[in-house]
Amino acid sequence: MQENDSNKATVVQPDYSAAIAALKARFAKQLSTNATIREQHGHTMTWLTNQPPDAVLTAYDKHEVAAAVAICNKHKMPVIAFGIGSSLEGQLNAPYGGLCIDMHAMDAILQVHNEDLTVTVQPGVTREQLNHYLRDTGLFFPIDPGANASIGGMVATRASGTNAVRYGTMKDVVLALEVVTASGEIIRTGTRAKKSAAGYDLTRLMIGSEGTLGIVTEVTLKLFGISECIGSGLCHFPSIEEACQAVMLTIQMCLPIARIELLDSLQVKACNRYANLDLLETPTLFVEFHGTEASVREQAESFNEIIREFNGTDFVWDTNEAERKRLWQARHNAYHASSALRPEASALSTDACVPISGLAECVSATAKDIEESGMLGPIVGHVGDGNFHVLLLVDTDNPEEVATADAIISRLAVRAIEMDGTCTGEHGIGQGKQKYMAQEHGNAVAMMQAIKAALDPNNILNPGKIWPQPLSIND
Amino acid sequence: MQENDSNKATVVQPDYSAAIAALKARFAKQLSTNATIREQHGHTMTWLTNQPPDAVLTAYDKHEVAAAVAICNKHKMPVIAFGIGSSLEGQLNAPYGGLCIDMHAMDAILQVHNEDLTVTVQPGVTREQLNHYLRDTGLFFPIDPGANASIGGMVATRASGTNAVRYGTMKDVVLALEVVTASGEIIRTGTRAKKSAAGYDLTRLMIGSEGTLGIVTEVTLKLFGISECIGSGLCHFPSIEEACQAVMLTIQMCLPIARIELLDSLQVKACNRYANLDLLETPTLFVEFHGTEASVREQAESFNEIIREFNGTDFVWDTNEAERKRLWQARHNAYHASSALRPEASALSTDACVPISGLAECVSATAKDIEESGMLGPIVGHVGDGNFHVLLLVDTDNPEEVATADAIISRLAVRAIEMDGTCTGEHGIGQGKQKYMAQEHGNAVAMMQAIKAALDPNNILNPGKIWPQPLSIND
Repeated sequence: MQENDSNKATVVQPDYSAAIAALKARFAKQLSTNATIREQHGHTMTWLTNQPPDAVLTAYDKHEVAAAVAICNKHKMPVIAFGIGSSLEGQLNAPYGGLCIDMHAMDAILQVHNEDLTVTVQPGVTREQLNHYLRDTGLFFPIDPGANASIGGMVATRASGTNAVRYGTMKDVVLALEVVTASGEIIRTGTRAKKSAAGYDLTRLMIGSEGTLGIVTEVTLKLFGISECIGSGLCHFPSIEEACQAVMLTIQMCLPIARIELLDSLQVKACNRYANLDLLETPTLFVEFHGTEASVREQAESFNEIIREFNGTDFVWDTNEAERKRLWQARHNAYHASSALRPEASALSTDACVPISGLAECVSATAKDIEESGMLGPIVGHVGDGNFHVLLLVDTDNPEEVATADAIISRLAVRAIEMDGTCTGEHGIGQGKQKYMAQEHGNAVAMMQAIKAALDPNNILNPGKIWPQPLSIND
Repeated sequence: MQENDSNKATVVQPDYSAAIAALKARFAKQLSTNATIREQHGHTMTWLTNQPPDAVLTAYDKHEVAAAVAICNKHKMPVIAFGIGSSLEGQLNAPYGGLCIDMHAMDAILQVHNEDLTVTVQPGVTREQLNHYLRDTGLFFPIDPGANASIGGMVATRASGTNAVRYGTMKDVVLALEVVTASGEIIRTGTRAKKSAAGYDLTRLMIGSEGTLGIVTEVTLKLFGISECIGSGLCHFPSIEEACQAVMLTIQMCLPIARIELLDSLQVKACNRYANLDLLETPTLFVEFHGTEASVREQAESFNEIIREFNGTDFVWDTNEAERKRLWQARHNAYHASSALRPEASALSTDACVPISGLAECVSATAKDIEESGMLGPIVGHVGDGNFHVLLLVDTDNPEEVATADAIISRLAVRAIEMDGTCTGEHGIGQGKQKYMAQEHGNAVAMMQAIKAALDPNNILNPGKIWPQPLSIND
């Protein structure tokens, strides 16, 4: 198991028994210290060591969250909010112990304002639950990370997904938040107005802060109308460079594409095996257009002209819903399909994002790096945003493989940063990517840390995340 | 003249002669203490008292800005960045004196990356200068506040304008900033990647902070492709309610409108007089669609169906560029046209923004309020965002008129906040709207102030703005 500064199983931690007793007195059976439950709330999605919290609280409303945080603050005990546990960089580990607040029971959809295209939800609502709820309104919520993540978790990690190229990321679709601060106060950031120039943008400050500045207890989101016509299809390319070049030209020509996803040959092969498909096993783009029937047709025709320039196969597309769902199911199964290529290994997902002009170069160099390492590592990506993922299939009990994988991830992060991109487009920093913060942000990290220290002086909110060192844990 | 807590001409201020001497030693003739120049750099766009700084520095590069701020920090002297001086809420006044850094000479366009649809500029570049520079690239920068504002000023106030309904506001189009901090360090926030999940969103924190958290020395912006076809036109309505209802349905039907601007009857009358036009003097929508020729036609037809439901006149539109420019010139002249309705008065602009479902109610109630007051106050607005302006024509030497105008503005701000909207959609808080911060943000104001105190412990960066009181000026 790999460890870094804030992922050490051996940190000596203070005695939190007084805090736990106070929580027990307040919350009785809602609080659990059962070892299995604690371990389930630690982190398991990477090779990082599972670091369970000392106790797990199931919260049912904002006042319970506020009361629990106030107790933690009084006792200077760490507190970590938990949605469904699908974060990918160790965001949920408890390297200094403390309380995990499980938000899954706060799953009410509080207000839908169809006429304003907004909805207010509790943080435990999942993205699929929300879209299921909206199914008869003609509206939808577009942000779709791979997992059926909770909305609260998606706020915390600034999530995005396949629709981001058209509809933006969490930073673009959140109008307002309700947040429990480190001292246990409840604040509101923003209103339901579409724009405002009234004071600091606390909403955007909270989004992507990974639970280190506050715990989200309500989220007001923008919704979007489901287009009259949706056309989906795919096309294959002789090389990954040509596929990426087609994406670059599509973006540069400002084609209002709704989704444009790359799967490399290995990923297509994995999908074929997993779902018994017969796709051509070359680099492939999955594409979707939203609009009126006429405009979808126009967009598809323009796209076809673009891909021909890069030796793509004819763009085969359809507006039939069943066909579209079948196609995107294959894309959404990418993680499981890849895992099945080597079932005994762990599938470790990393991501990076570069300016679109660097896409072909960055993806090609990464593919070459993986190939030379001898590892299995399919590439999939939200390439319209310059964002892509590598899914490395690693035997985490084999230190040599772990080191090889870690080196590939490092080289990718550095490669992206050197191209004026970022070490993570949508997974976040957590514990796994702390070592790239200084290279990406330079002395701006000190400004982030000053904000953290101001808003959480006892460093109780998810300590040991984003930064390589705890700030001043229980000094 | 109206005064509020941070707009008092009589504040006793410390002796800054040592700081001025240090600046003079470093910057020689770049520093001016001439009274006329100082007054020109105070604020003049409202009825707020002009509060000039003690000195004005013309800065030519980021290192000069950093050196000047470091000197100010050492001497605990306020420092205010100045673009072109078009802010509307007293953002540039110097209630505690100090240094004004005039950024107009930092007007270089540093890098255009056509292939990434990004540009990096110095903060003194104006929006018209930028678009003139881009004229042969097929790209444009969409954010267009009324004035030909500087990009740095637009970052500071989170500006938007007529294109925001389609292209977003400054919060959506800024990719990265270079910022001089209160201690005189230079940091970078963000990269040229379209999205990132790496740490706190300092970019969005700086946008809209009105120079109270740092001074912007470089801005990296997203650009957009100029559409193949642009269709513009207008339509008239029997009442302002019906015009607003047409806007609401347009937004609710998710028509991808590029601009939708409301002018009330008085504003149309003002435009007719000012530019010798013969528009029907009833509530009018100016509208624009961007797309392919076929999609613009489709959008215009859908829009025509919508306005018929609300008794709008037929939508007369054109794709001819000269005709389009003529139309939008009339809209862009609204401020000057209104002023000419009462040339001896000052035109005071205020704005508010509500969820779209509240638009008709909020605009109608505001129109009624103005009418009952007997004042002249045309209404214009970026109504697709629920955002509108009132331009009150006030004799600022008449205390009764000032009080009447102030009461109208107050009632509008409170009305918008009570509808879950904001007291300002795009003008900012400055000095003029501080009194609404608590009602709009409640205890979240304390979080904003904690961030301010952490990033600017000596309170030198534009003190007395956003908050009703200075935090701890020169304690």
